[in-house]
Amino acid sequence: MEFTNELFDELYEFVETKQLKKLREILSELNPADAALFFDRLEEKNIPIVFRILPKDLAGETFSYMDPESQELLIRSFNDNELRQIINDMYLDDVVDVIEEMPANVVARILQTANQNTRQQLNELLKYPEDSAGSIMTVEYVSLNKNKTVAEAFQKIRREGIDKETVYTCYVTEKRKLIGTVSVKDLLLADEEESVGNIMVSNVPAVDAYEDKEEVAKAFSKYDVLALPVVDKDGRIVGIVTVDDAIDVIEEEATEDIEKIAAITPSDRPYLKSSAASLWLQRIPWLVLLMVSATFTGAIITSFEDALQAFPALIAFIPMLMGTGGNAGGQASVTVIRGLALEEIRMGDVFKVLWKEIRVSVMCGVVLAVLNFIKIIVVDNLIFGSGITTLENLTVSLTLVVVVFSAKVIGSTLPIGAKRIGLDPAVMASPLITTVVDAISLIVYFAIATQVLTI
Amino acid sequence: MEFTNELFDELYEFVETKQLKKLREILSELNPADAALFFDRLEEKNIPIVFRILPKDLAGETFSYMDPESQELLIRSFNDNELRQIINDMYLDDVVDVIEEMPANVVARILQTANQNTRQQLNELLKYPEDSAGSIMTVEYVSLNKNKTVAEAFQKIRREGIDKETVYTCYVTEKRKLIGTVSVKDLLLADEEESVGNIMVSNVPAVDAYEDKEEVAKAFSKYDVLALPVVDKDGRIVGIVTVDDAIDVIEEEATEDIEKIAAITPSDRPYLKSSAASLWLQRIPWLVLLMVSATFTGAIITSFEDALQAFPALIAFIPMLMGTGGNAGGQASVTVIRGLALEEIRMGDVFKVLWKEIRVSVMCGVVLAVLNFIKIIVVDNLIFGSGITTLENLTVSLTLVVVVFSAKVIGSTLPIGAKRIGLDPAVMASPLITTVVDAISLIVYFAIATQVLTI
Repeated sequence: MEFTNELFDELYEFVETKQLKKLREILSELNPADAALFFDRLEEKNIPIVFRILPKDLAGETFSYMDPESQELLIRSFNDNELRQIINDMYLDDVVDVIEEMPANVVARILQTANQNTRQQLNELLKYPEDSAGSIMTVEYVSLNKNKTVAEAFQKIRREGIDKETVYTCYVTEKRKLIGTVSVKDLLLADEEESVGNIMVSNVPAVDAYEDKEEVAKAFSKYDVLALPVVDKDGRIVGIVTVDDAIDVIEEEATEDIEKIAAITPSDRPYLKSSAASLWLQRIPWLVLLMVSATFTGAIITSFEDALQAFPALIAFIPMLMGTGGNAGGQASVTVIRGLALEEIRMGDVFKVLWKEIRVSVMCGVVLAVLNFIKIIVVDNLIFGSGITTLENLTVSLTLVVVVFSAKVIGSTLPIGAKRIGLDPAVMASPLITTVVDAISLIVYFAIATQVLTI
Repeated sequence: MEFTNELFDELYEFVETKQLKKLREILSELNPADAALFFDRLEEKNIPIVFRILPKDLAGETFSYMDPESQELLIRSFNDNELRQIINDMYLDDVVDVIEEMPANVVARILQTANQNTRQQLNELLKYPEDSAGSIMTVEYVSLNKNKTVAEAFQKIRREGIDKETVYTCYVTEKRKLIGTVSVKDLLLADEEESVGNIMVSNVPAVDAYEDKEEVAKAFSKYDVLALPVVDKDGRIVGIVTVDDAIDVIEEEATEDIEKIAAITPSDRPYLKSSAASLWLQRIPWLVLLMVSATFTGAIITSFEDALQAFPALIAFIPMLMGTGGNAGGQASVTVIRGLALEEIRMGDVFKVLWKEIRVSVMCGVVLAVLNFIKIIVVDNLIFGSGITTLENLTVSLTLVVVVFSAKVIGSTLPIGAKRIGLDPAVMASPLITTVVDAISLIVYFAIATQVLTI
């Protein structure tokens, strides 16, 4: 049963008419992720009432999937016992996710209410910087000693497993150092008397707790694992990241890159949850920056005012030339930015990229120039009678070739250059490159015009 | 041990000096994903030689991770026995991935060589359309009967598990219909005599085999599962998609959207593996389309030639106005496109989006107009002595407000409109919106100029 508008209406009817038993029945049938969607659409006053009718085993997980707004509302309505219960029912990394979204007084109450052991673990997790591997890991994993037998390992999994986020990969440690992993699949297929050390895999990918979470996401997509161990600088395991959190990071990182490409300062908040003021703040600095940098293009045009007075037809092609340059440069830069993000392109590939873009840009430029030359003759002159001279036409078409060439060369190399000096390649995307290309387009245009038209 | 340039050099040294034993030793220590990276960088002639020294248990998995080019080369060098062995060692969905990249004669040989059962399953999987859930699923899962006990379930997992891609979620079926799932974790924590039906979860998210694989990816990010069952139209289970394949889809879909946003026809091939001709083909149609559509802006400028002759200062601001409009519209459209892709924005939200964008655009427009007004007085007039009149300045600043407003309104609604009529919202991104906004900017500019400057 999936969560649809019809289902919402049906459930809401039960809320309105206080048929809580029927409501509970249907909610119990739902996947927690779907049940959370119902709460997120309920009015504030009803959220605590309906939440209390949820079956115990569903409450914690449903809570994890809710919006921060609904979570905060619920926490404020909980008494200490209820709050402690929910914290116990949730995985620790999910509790950390909740804490990170709450105001300070709610955070303080969560930490106060949690039992001592949980509080200690939470404080441990909260000390890692935002966006680090440590900030998205959990400490709930099963660790094994290499000298134990498979049967003993299963005993330990059965004893501790209920509270662990995953039992499918167990971590073999020696003096807290990670020396290998063993999967439950391998344990199931092994002899009961076999030792864990004999069946463990020792070439284990791991990440440092202070590494950027983007690296964690990359490791998941490279190694196809269900969980990744997080280690400190001495190689001691401090936690694990599970694949569901890695998926969130992969989506967040893609969204961030897309926002940067479109000249928006990235934000964690979904669009509809963002206030107009915060959206404005994400966008206005870039608009101002790009507007001010367009002063150059204005200055270039002003300095060629005489040429434009002599050949007014040239003005009409300025938008087309600048637009094509921006698009051609944007194509190259975005391709390279994404390639860098997915590590399909590395720093050492700069000459390979350049050579490829040179060939592509010549092919694109020549085709565009020829089509434009024909278009001016047929559409502009024959149909609209604009009376553009062949020399003017030649000027525009020649400019196209040079503009596309320089746009692609700049567009492809600027992101790599940015990465080399430690900047984020994504901010070098279309809008910024467009500004550079705009200025170059105009200079080239007027330079060619001066030669061809002998102004 | 991770794969680095130094490690490559070290290993390559062993290849050159034919120290195959040492090479084998180090390769065995590597994670298969890293070992595959080594093969992808090796020259063609050495790939088959080195591959044959890999330990048997590493060969299949390493092969799965290789580039299609290396895989094809190896398949051509294999005799039938070797090929059959590799196919047996790989998971079926990985074999399908390989087949999809191979030329027809190699595909024919793979299907011929596989044993009858495998061939049947492969043909079954290959019949699903590209980009469907069926095309990325595997048929290697464990199915259970609800009347079996936990102990019997473990027997079945032990018997069949070695060949299954995942054993951690088992699928409970009744007359092949999916009626629930049971996780190995729950099996481990349950009593041996308990029946599977009693501990299974029955609210199972599933996808239709013909559904777009993008929907599969969305289900993974929503439900936090390790595998998702794929069903036919009668609810019978036909396969499962595992989370590692879902991660690939999530990354591919993000790349596709980024490419469409930058006016590039998406492609599966990594940049460095794409020929210049194929890159050209991905880009040129959009460049031509956008160049031709810029004819409108040219026509608008031409029709206002007299106004521009009377007030030549206006020409210099055309790039800034069009650029700002393009950037403002791009910000709005890209935000909405990503929101639609992540289902944070739904079709019904169009008025919420519009109202938000109206407020943001007024705030952005007014700030830009004021800053621009001051900039023209200080920079253009005082510093560069451009002599722009207050009325001209007013024209430009007023235009900015209207341009930003219309850019954001169009930018945010066009993608939603595209989705409503069944088009991909991502193609409505920056470049296409820029073209529309460019035309509007110019019309607004000249209309305001006509009024303010009484041309």
